[in-house]
Amino acid sequence: MLNAIGGQHFAKTLDITPLKVAYGEVTLKMPVQPKVFQQLGYVHGGAITSLLDTATVMCSVTLIRDDESTLTTELKVNFLGPGEGEYILGTARTIKDGGKLIIMEAEATAVFADGSTRDVAHMTTTYIRLKRPQQR
Amino acid sequence: MLNAIGGQHFAKTLDITPLKVAYGEVTLKMPVQPKVFQQLGYVHGGAITSLLDTATVMCSVTLIRDDESTLTTELKVNFLGPGEGEYILGTARTIKDGGKLIIMEAEATAVFADGSTRDVAHMTTTYIRLKRPQQR
Amino acid sequence: MLNAIGGQHFAKTLDITPLKVAYGEVTLKMPVQPKVFQQLGYVHGGAITSLLDTATVMCSVTLIRDDESTLTTELKVNFLGPGEGEYILGTARTIKDGGKLIIMEAEATAVFADGSTRDVAHMTTTYIRLKRPQQR
Amino acid sequence: MLNAIGGQHFAKTLDITPLKVAYGEVTLKMPVQPKVFQQLGYVHGGAITSLLDTATVMCSVTLIRDDESTLTTELKVNFLGPGEGEYILGTARTIKDGGKLIIMEAEATAVFADGSTRDVAHMTTTYIRLKRPQQR
Repeated sequence: MLNAIGGQHFAKTLDITPLKVAYGEVTLKMPVQPKVFQQLGYVHGGAITSLLDTATVMCSVTLIRDDESTLTTELKVNFLGPGEGEYILGTARTIKDGGKLIIMEAEATAVFADGSTRDVAHMTTTYIRLKRPQQR
Repeated sequence: MLNAIGGQHFAKTLDITPLKVAYGEVTLKMPVQPKVFQQLGYVHGGAITSLLDTATVMCSVTLIRDDESTLTTELKVNFLGPGEGEYILGTARTIKDGGKLIIMEAEATAVFADGSTRDVAHMTTTYIRLKRPQQR
Repeated sequence: MLNAIGGQHFAKTLDITPLKVAYGEVTLKMPVQPKVFQQLGYVHGGAITSLLDTATVMCSVTLIRDDESTLTTELKVNFLGPGEGEYILGTARTIKDGGKLIIMEAEATAVFADGSTRDVAHMTTTYIRLKRPQQR
Repeated sequence: MLNAIGGQHFAKTLDITPLKVAYGEVTLKMPVQPKVFQQLGYVHGGAITSLLDTATVMCSVTLIRDDESTLTTELKVNFLGPGEGEYILGTARTIKDGGKLIIMEAEATAVFADGSTRDVAHMTTTYIRLKRPQQR
């Protein structure tokens, strides 16, 4: 399961690595580094969203059968504070595991060198279950 | 104004380039390439969101005074189709230019080699006006 | 089709009436009256949302077959200005009419006694197609 | 504080009553009755949203000073199950109490005659702090 990130080129571009992948719950880590900065020197909101969306897609995959896949249908992010520190933690958990739709929530947390933390973002998102794995 | 993307490290990581930057309206272009793919070989929803958020931040900047800056407070994306083709266009336009908040909408469109297009995503977002430029 | 509002008890509670119901496009009207006010004397955001959600459910119904029904899976509203004037217009239009999901956008507009108008709210929403009519 | 609902005409129209109003946390109750039904005989998504928005506005009021007021700027609801049972509980809690914006989340839960419960909806929302009470 920890290899699920293997095929995720974009997650690799962001240097995202998994810390925990369990049934209905995923935690990932993304380093704070210049290549993900916006114009003010903080992590770009799009990179934060990418971390959270990567966490929720992996979370959705823990819930489905081998002959299914999932696709994001919508996501909404509230930004709570600047993306800074040493790295950003992205955690996803399941709100509803339905027959057709999976609803999850995810949180981004800045972790500083001294171990202190601060809220960065909160996301809710809907995934749809597809009946067979999609491959391009 | 077209240089506004200059300080956007993350936009450069995604090879985003501006096509049009006008008062309250911005169009950007992001190539479809492996480094932004998700596990199925399409452009990652987070990269699509990053394109749209980059378009809206630039759009918000066209609306403010020199002694102001803006910050995303929330965004919501509906995904309409796969991120594929030659490149993705991201266009932003203003819904409300308020004294405290700026509300915009943005669309992502896939452009194929033969010039045909397909809807990829629709976003709404809120930015807050800040009284002076923020610099880290 | 204009009778579709017939079974909508809540729409009647709000005195919502249809002005236009066409394929993929609906306009409704809700009077501004004390029973829908919040604490400041404007139309409650929940009543605005109810108007828009009633418009989008009717809009979704114009798109489906007789053996289908639809259900709201999510909605997001940006509030643009106070709910005031003589009445509020709610208009819905289709963004994507997909095989599984229908994505729409809707706008609420305040109409004043002198005929002038002002933006009140903007909504995006997702409906799921169900294979047969649901009845409680 | 429990009287805060006093001026809320729309909340009265929906027969919403407060169960708990504490600093940064509010629980309200709305009966399941025909006047809030949609076409399928369940509680209208707009009425659910109204319950949650009423809970969050009251929650925001517990956080501000006497010379301030608050206004909803955006809300997003994910619907998790049908609005049915004896009544719907709406609970709001604070995600971020910021100097300019207040971000909250709220949940709607159906309570049945036998005391069992089921998730109905999940909302995230942003309120803006205003420097003085607004009155129409």
